[in-house]
This record gives sequence, structure tokens and C-alpha cells, in this order.
Amino acid sequence: MTDTIPLAGYLFRRLHEAGLRAVHGVPGDYNLVMMDYIVPAGLEWVGNCNELNAGYAADGYARVKGIGALVTTFGVGELSAINAIAGSYAELAPVVHIVGTPKRALQTRGVKLHHSVCSGKPSDFTMFAEMYSKVTVAQENLWDASTAPSQIDRAIRECVLQSRPVYIQVPSDMVTEPLPASSLAQPLDLTLPSNNPELEQEVCDIIVDRISSATQPFILIDAGTSRYGLTGEADELVQRTGFPTATTPFGKGIPDETLPNFHGIYASVGENTYVPYVESCDLVINIGPIHSNVNTSCFTTIPNPKVSVVFDQTSITIGSKVWNVLPKSVLRRVVDRLEHIMFSFWQYPSLPDPRATLNRIPPVARTGALTQDIFWKRMSRFFRPGDMVLTETGTASSGGRDFVFPRNVGMINSGVWLSIGYMLAAAQGVALAQRTLASSYKHARTILFEGDGSFQVTAQELSTIIRKQLNVIIFVINNDGYTIERLIHGMEAEYNDIAQWKYLDSPSYFGAPSDGSYPVLTARVSTWGELDDVLSRDDFQRSCGLRMVEVMMGVSDCSQTLRDFLEMYASKKD
Amino acid sequence: MTDTIPLAGYLFRRLHEAGLRAVHGVPGDYNLVMMDYIVPAGLEWVGNCNELNAGYAADGYARVKGIGALVTTFGVGELSAINAIAGSYAELAPVVHIVGTPKRALQTRGVKLHHSVCSGKPSDFTMFAEMYSKVTVAQENLWDASTAPSQIDRAIRECVLQSRPVYIQVPSDMVTEPLPASSLAQPLDLTLPSNNPELEQEVCDIIVDRISSATQPFILIDAGTSRYGLTGEADELVQRTGFPTATTPFGKGIPDETLPNFHGIYASVGENTYVPYVESCDLVINIGPIHSNVNTSCFTTIPNPKVSVVFDQTSITIGSKVWNVLPKSVLRRVVDRLEHIMFSFWQYPSLPDPRATLNRIPPVARTGALTQDIFWKRMSRFFRPGDMVLTETGTASSGGRDFVFPRNVGMINSGVWLSIGYMLAAAQGVALAQRTLASSYKHARTILFEGDGSFQVTAQELSTIIRKQLNVIIFVINNDGYTIERLIHGMEAEYNDIAQWKYLDSPSYFGAPSDGSYPVLTARVSTWGELDDVLSRDDFQRSCGLRMVEVMMGVSDCSQTLRDFLEMYASKKD
Repeated sequence: MTDTIPLAGYLFRRLHEAGLRAVHGVPGDYNLVMMDYIVPAGLEWVGNCNELNAGYAADGYARVKGIGALVTTFGVGELSAINAIAGSYAELAPVVHIVGTPKRALQTRGVKLHHSVCSGKPSDFTMFAEMYSKVTVAQENLWDASTAPSQIDRAIRECVLQSRPVYIQVPSDMVTEPLPASSLAQPLDLTLPSNNPELEQEVCDIIVDRISSATQPFILIDAGTSRYGLTGEADELVQRTGFPTATTPFGKGIPDETLPNFHGIYASVGENTYVPYVESCDLVINIGPIHSNVNTSCFTTIPNPKVSVVFDQTSITIGSKVWNVLPKSVLRRVVDRLEHIMFSFWQYPSLPDPRATLNRIPPVARTGALTQDIFWKRMSRFFRPGDMVLTETGTASSGGRDFVFPRNVGMINSGVWLSIGYMLAAAQGVALAQRTLASSYKHARTILFEGDGSFQVTAQELSTIIRKQLNVIIFVINNDGYTIERLIHGMEAEYNDIAQWKYLDSPSYFGAPSDGSYPVLTARVSTWGELDDVLSRDDFQRSCGLRMVEVMMGVSDCSQTLRDFLEMYASKKD
Repeated sequence: MTDTIPLAGYLFRRLHEAGLRAVHGVPGDYNLVMMDYIVPAGLEWVGNCNELNAGYAADGYARVKGIGALVTTFGVGELSAINAIAGSYAELAPVVHIVGTPKRALQTRGVKLHHSVCSGKPSDFTMFAEMYSKVTVAQENLWDASTAPSQIDRAIRECVLQSRPVYIQVPSDMVTEPLPASSLAQPLDLTLPSNNPELEQEVCDIIVDRISSATQPFILIDAGTSRYGLTGEADELVQRTGFPTATTPFGKGIPDETLPNFHGIYASVGENTYVPYVESCDLVINIGPIHSNVNTSCFTTIPNPKVSVVFDQTSITIGSKVWNVLPKSVLRRVVDRLEHIMFSFWQYPSLPDPRATLNRIPPVARTGALTQDIFWKRMSRFFRPGDMVLTETGTASSGGRDFVFPRNVGMINSGVWLSIGYMLAAAQGVALAQRTLASSYKHARTILFEGDGSFQVTAQELSTIIRKQLNVIIFVINNDGYTIERLIHGMEAEYNDIAQWKYLDSPSYFGAPSDGSYPVLTARVSTWGELDDVLSRDDFQRSCGLRMVEVMMGVSDCSQTLRDFLEMYASKKD
């Protein structure tokens, strides 16, 4: 081992240490030399077709692996990706965005360089970082070799601990700057700070007391649960208490849906609502709430704070009192105590069983046209342990609420940012991350549902899926346009129309080899019989290669749940 | 005529008055209602596949028509487009970016809405506007009906006069707010302010004196010439003085290249350099300089200020003295005076004649492989009056320097921002703008040259070209990756590779009709013979439909000019 390591080498080695195995991005002249250090650090390079897609892919990867990374070039590259990073910020995905910038002396002198706005001022080289400061939780400019190691370590730490994106600028003339190799000897510190033990004990006692005395309890597992690292503890809480449990639209996929006390998505629209029950509870344990309008049925399902124990990212709120403690160790302690406590008498309520909906799906004729109200429920039979299911914003994200999952099925949908086009590129990142996971689920599949309008936004990323030979199943809902927009306003309006593409030509167009080295299967389905035939094919279910189904649906068709939600949304006056 | 007009109606009517005929963008729930007012205002709606592409298309449209417009939705939509708008800012394209935002009451209360980062603070609704304030010259939030007309008028005026993008937010609940129809009675004021007449006279006298006494004069027409509305005056100046004239890489297409005193692109790399001549001039009239590194051969071709008369956007600089006058009326006055002045004796120098290069193109064998050094020069024979030629950043923009144009050929290349992917989407906007121009050139064509890497960035916009049945000729240079990056660093590196697509399947894949209603022609060419055969086909040259040629080139091949430039660029130490 030499005494020094180039700055870029240090950066990528630290990212590897944090669990990263692949870097997404697009090359540009301000980041080219940096690229040479990616593969030697044990990381795979994924060149995406453009930076927005690369940002989406890094985000999808991060949601599975706990960290993602994106390399872009100054100005044009980073700005193309800012919508993806803003989404990572809004939805808490830990992405490290690394930007290759011009040499320091050029920046200081305000030289009129390409990819800047060429005002001739030094602010040309700070303006994009200022934009990024609004949508990242740490910003580091690696301007000085003596501080670079601690800057890199701090940025990665904030990214992982806050589960939000960070932004690192690397001037071209800093890439090969030697850093002391000894900096690597100290492991990257990604441990959570400790809570004040007395505070922790106190809040734990209160929570345990509330749990033991509850007579009408409820647990709500929201999307923050996975972001704050609480999934394991939450799962134990649900099992040990046996309390009725639900998730939110955005939290779907986090709780184990096979548990008898799991009652689906808690919402005020859809078939299985039980808002009155929750409103009369004397205890609601609310883990990782994300209170966006779309995740709370327009704010109608936020549990009563007076009876709530709320686990947030850096605090716990019980009634009106806030405890500034990190929730993970508190929840761990609570769960450990549950073995030894006596519960009050409480009677298990009569709440909807989402699994039962599988037996209530109306019968369909083989020749019958596909309808959204049945399609999503019926697809539940297709999932199996290890799957990652992605539903794009639109009729897919709404329809996917009706999925009933076996154990160990993960889900990605969007609960805050809702940027269409995200899911296809994210699927690339997810599938790549799944390939690097432990092989306990050998046939893990990445399954994407998205509409035609969304598909067109980022379609070229299919080419990266193919090039990396990833295992992805894609259902493209062809309903001839932006159906969710039609339902909101302009059912017949030209502005909600899109072009008709030959979607099933995608694998061929985007370069899938024809020699069988990467299996491709495509099908168009318009009827239940055609759909069933495809789904039951063994070579369709198998988890290698690309399978793409064009699902023909009505232009204005959507699930009743979506119709109800949009009606509620429209009726809100402000 | 009713007494009131809805706010959105006013906005789009004013844009029509400013010369706009088409609005680009993507629908979203915060802008849907606004969309209803586009077509009634006499504007065409162009729904692009995504917002970045829409921004690029609006920019291309603006460069031809003098104004472009883009409609996006709050957050996700506007951020996807910010790289395009930053490019419009850097390269002075007049684009009005209209963003549909949430209802005012929701913004004020900081409600956690989708497409925001959901912090719960009112700043959620100002942060994107703050980002945009760095890359737009005016920002208006139409929050109040009483000020909305003047806000709209001011934004459009700044857009047109400064030739740079502006940003207008329209809260959803403001779209139909009634404005007094009488506001429309007063025409939109797009006239330039008048200069102080004495100042103008004074500077004009000095310039005329400098012109009349020059013994070694030179005129340099840069990209600002068209942005500042000086093209006509500059053209007359060149003709009336007969002075040796050149353009810059970014300014190419502005001067009339058929004039005998036109000497091509002034650069310090390439075949026809004459830097020593210009350095010994006693007068350089420099119109609309844009001094980016790529436009000035790394700052080596900036004329000596001591002998320069520089026409900037809002000032004229003669030697070290700056006159704060708008240049247009000054240049007009100067040109008018030229008929009546005596010139000093000056001898026409021996400078390279770019037209002569057409006769010096080395002969090629029909079976010979295509090479960049010859390809670009040879393509000159293909152009004809009325053409708009677009060359994407990379080997195409560099190669396009060698084009020799007939009269009235316009060109778009990138001289500052250099964001790959721009040109294909811009070509959609350009072709649409050309369709609405006067019919003096009935067979006006939009001709795009771009590399395969750039094509992949925004490929789906071909679908909009097809859907709008635009007349576009595309040459895709297939050289298997990012050749310009390879030449800079990493010739063999994986990160400069891209996937191989079936480029010629694009028209079919993206939905071109097969019934002949929109003619499509595709061809792959690898040899000079194949290229000539395609170019000489009458149905290829004809200006209707889509024609797409995949031009097979060597992975590391580029023009000598580009090789020289990159060598110079690399040798710059800071």
C-alpha cells in the first residue's frame, strides 16, 4: 500500500465502504478523469442515456441498497439531474451526487467556460451549487486536499444517516490530488449518535405503558419506517403486539402483508376504509409518517395526535410532547420489553382483510376486455417472495394499492414527488441493486407497471436495462395518453394526448441482442385470456432477461379508488 | 367583446401579439386548466415527451421566431426543464417559461402537496423560483389580478428585449381570474428605449471616423449579432464597407457567406487561420461578441481592444471607453452614413476564401469509408437557401465549421452551454417555426447533424417531429459512443461507450404512419458512394416528411480542426 491515494480513489473507496457497488451517470469533460477511479474501487459503472435518468436510476438503486451515487458534469449535467435529486430529497433516498467541475484557478477567475452561463463572474461557478443546496442535506466542494477526506466522510455520513441526497463538487485539478492513505485506516463512521439514556428510558416507559393499557390500538407503518431504518423493529412490534396494523399508500411494501393483523392501506377512499375505527382508537402508533396530500387521502387519515405515538426521523411525539431522541433504539427497547408486559384486555376488531379481496375478484370472461378495477387485484397472484414491484405515478400507482403481496415483496411507488418517468429509470437501478443482493431469493424479479405517457418520458433507459442484461418485467399500460390528467381535467383535450409508439419494438430498437444471450419476450394483451396466457408461461415468469407486456386499457378507465380520490381532491376548495 | 378576459387568456393573447404561434410543454395537474386557453389564443399546442425536451424545443423555436414558450407544472415539471432554460439564458434565446403552481391559499399555508418537497413550510413554494432567478432575466408570480397584466407585459418585454428567458408562475386559482379586457387595447410595447441623441451622435461620429480612416480593417460578426437584433445592420455594414469579414464558430450562419469579403470562421485552429492579420489590424468592428472558451479558440482570437469597436447588448466600447447606448440605432446610423463618406486607401488583403475549399476537397473513391475531415466539407453541396442547419455539440458542431453556405441559410450550434441532446429537440422547434414563416422559401428544410450519444439523450422527441408531421432531415453520426470525450480522455474507456440502437428503426418505433401520409425515408451509409446515392435522390432532397441517415464513422475519427482545438484546450494549464 502506498502512502497516498488520489482524491477520487479515496472518494470511491469510501462509497464502496458505505455499501455502494455501482455508480450511475454520464461522462463529460469535467468528470472524465474521475471516472478512471470507479472500477478500481470495486464499483460498477453504469452509463445512462441522460442525467435525469441516471439520477432516477441512482435513486432506485439507493432505495434497495441504502446508498446510491450519480456522477455528472458541471452545469449541463448536474442541472439535467436536479429534478431527480429533488425527488430523492422529497422522498428520502440516500443518493451521493458527485459533480466534476472546472479547475479551481478558472473558477476563481470567473473564466468564461463552456457549460457555464459565461457572465465572466466567479458566481458562474457557485450558482448551481446554490440551487442544489435547497434539495440536498450536505454540500461539499473538494477544494483543499487537507480537508477533503473529512468532507467526503461527512457527506457520505449525512447521506446515509439522513437518508437524503448530498452534493459533492470535485474540481478537475483535484481528482488526482494525493491524500494520505492512512485516512482510509479509520473506518467510515455510519453509526447513529446515542440518545441520552435517561430520556430514552423515560420515553420508552411511557410508550410501553401506553401499549400495555391500550384497549383500541392501531399501528400505522408509513414510508419513513424504511428511511429511518425502523423496518425490523416495526415488524417485531406488529408481531408481538398483534395490534391491527395498516400502511399508507407510500408505505406499502414495508410491513409483512401476510400477517393476520395486517389490514392493507389505511385510506379514506377505496373499498376497505375504516376511518371511524381509527378515529376512536385510544392508541395509534404511527411510524415514519409522511404527510403529503396523496399519502393521507388529502389529510383525512392523519391520526388524532392526542392518542398518537409518532416515530419521526429524529424525534418521538406522544400527544403534544416532543422527545428529541432518535427513534431506532427507543423502538428496539420497546419491542424488547413487550415480551415481559401484560396487555390490557382488548378485543380484536372487525376490520377488512385485504387477502379476502383476492377471493372476491369478479369472474372474467377470457374474451373480456381488461379493466383497471379488476386488473390490479388480479395481478396479485403473479407476485412471489423476493420481487421488487414498482408502480409509476398515474393509474398504476393508484391501482397498485390493491396488490396483495406475499412475504418479502418490496415496493416502490411515489408518495410525494410524483415525477412521471421516474419508475422506468428507477427500475434499472433497482434491478441492478437486486443482482448484488444476497442470493436468498435467487429468482428475485424487478416488476414495473407504468402508463404509456410515463414510459415516453424516459424510454431510452430500457437501453441501459438491456445493456446491463438486467432482469426486468415491464407492464406498459397503453391507454392512449395521460389518463390521470384526463380524469382531472380535459378528458377529450388534445393536450392529454400522446403519440402512439410501437412499444413492443422497444427491446429490438434499443439494442437487445438477437442471439439469445439475453432473453426477451414481448406480448400485447387486450383480454383476460391473453393476459392469463402470458402470465402463465414459464418463460415469462422466469427471472432472466426482459419481458415486456403492452396492456391495452380504456382511455378513461381507472380504478374506483382513483376515481374516488380525484373526486375528493377536486372538492377541496383550497 | 366581453368586458373581461381570463388571466390565462390574456397571457396567451399577449404571447401571440409578441409573435408566438406555438406553445411547448407537458401537462400536469397544476397547469391543466391553463391549457384550455392556448388554442383559442391562436397558438398551437405541442405536447413534448418530457419537459427538458420541451424546453429545448421552445428554445429552438425561439431562435427562429424571436420568441418561444414553455408550459410546465410546479416542481417536477419546471425542474426537469431548468437545464434547457439555463441554456437559453447562456446562449440568449427568448423563451417564456410558464409554470402552473398550486392554489395561493395552499402555498401560503405551506400545505404538504405533491410535487413539493413537503417540508410543510411556505418556502416549499418559493424554492424553485429562487433557482430560476439565477437563469432568467425576469420572474413574475401572477398572484394578484390587478397587477397581472403589467406583470405579463413586463415579462414578455424583458424576454424579447434582452433575448433571454423569463419565468412566470400562475397559481391554479388565478388561471380564470377576470382581467379587464381593456388591458389588451394598449398594444404590447416591444420597442427599444431611445438612446440619448447626443450620445448616439457622438459615438456614431467616432465610429464613422474610425471606419473612414482605417487602413487594415476587419469585421467580426459574433452570435450576439442576431440576439441583439443587429443582423440586418451588420449585413449592410459588411456590404457597404467591403471590409474583410468573418464570423465565430457560434456566429456561423449570421453573415451572408456568399459575399466576396466573407472569410469564414475566425479561429486559431483549423485550415484557414489568419490570426496575425487580425492582430495587426488598425480597426476591428466586433459585433455581438460571446467570449466563451469554445467560441474564441480558448481566448486566443479575442481582437485587441485597443483597435476594436465592440457592439455589445447595451453598450458600445471603443478602445477603453464604454458608451451606454443600445447598439441597434447607432449601427443603423453608421450604416446610413457610409454612403456619404470617403474611405482611406486600404488594400484588400490576401485572406483565405472558404468557398475555395469546396474545390480543394480531396477526391474520394465510391467504396471508400467516410471520414470526418472530408464529410463535413462535402456536405456543403447539399444546402440550399432557406435551410436551417443544426449541428449538435461534439464532432458535428466542430465539423460544421467547414460548411460553406449559400445565401439565407441559418445555423444553430451551441457556443456556450454545449448540452448534448439539445439539438434533436431543438430541431422540432425549429422545423415548426419554419412552417409558420413566410413562404418565400417554400422548400425550407430543417437539417440536423448529431452523434449517436447525443441522439440517445433526447431520442423520444423524434416522436413529436413525427406527430406534428414536420419536415426534418437527420444525419446520425454512428461512431459508437462519445467520440469527443474519447478524444479528451479515455479513448478505450468503458465510460465512453454507449449501447448500439437500431437508429433507422426510429421512425417506425416512434409512430410514423405507414400509409404514406407522412413520407419517411431512411438509409445507412458507410461509403462515399452510398452517401452520394442517398443525397442525390430526389425524394431525399424534397422538403417533406422525415429523412434519416445513419452515417457510419470511425470510433476515434474527427476533423483536424477538432483535434487541433482539443490539443490546444488540453495544453492550457489553468
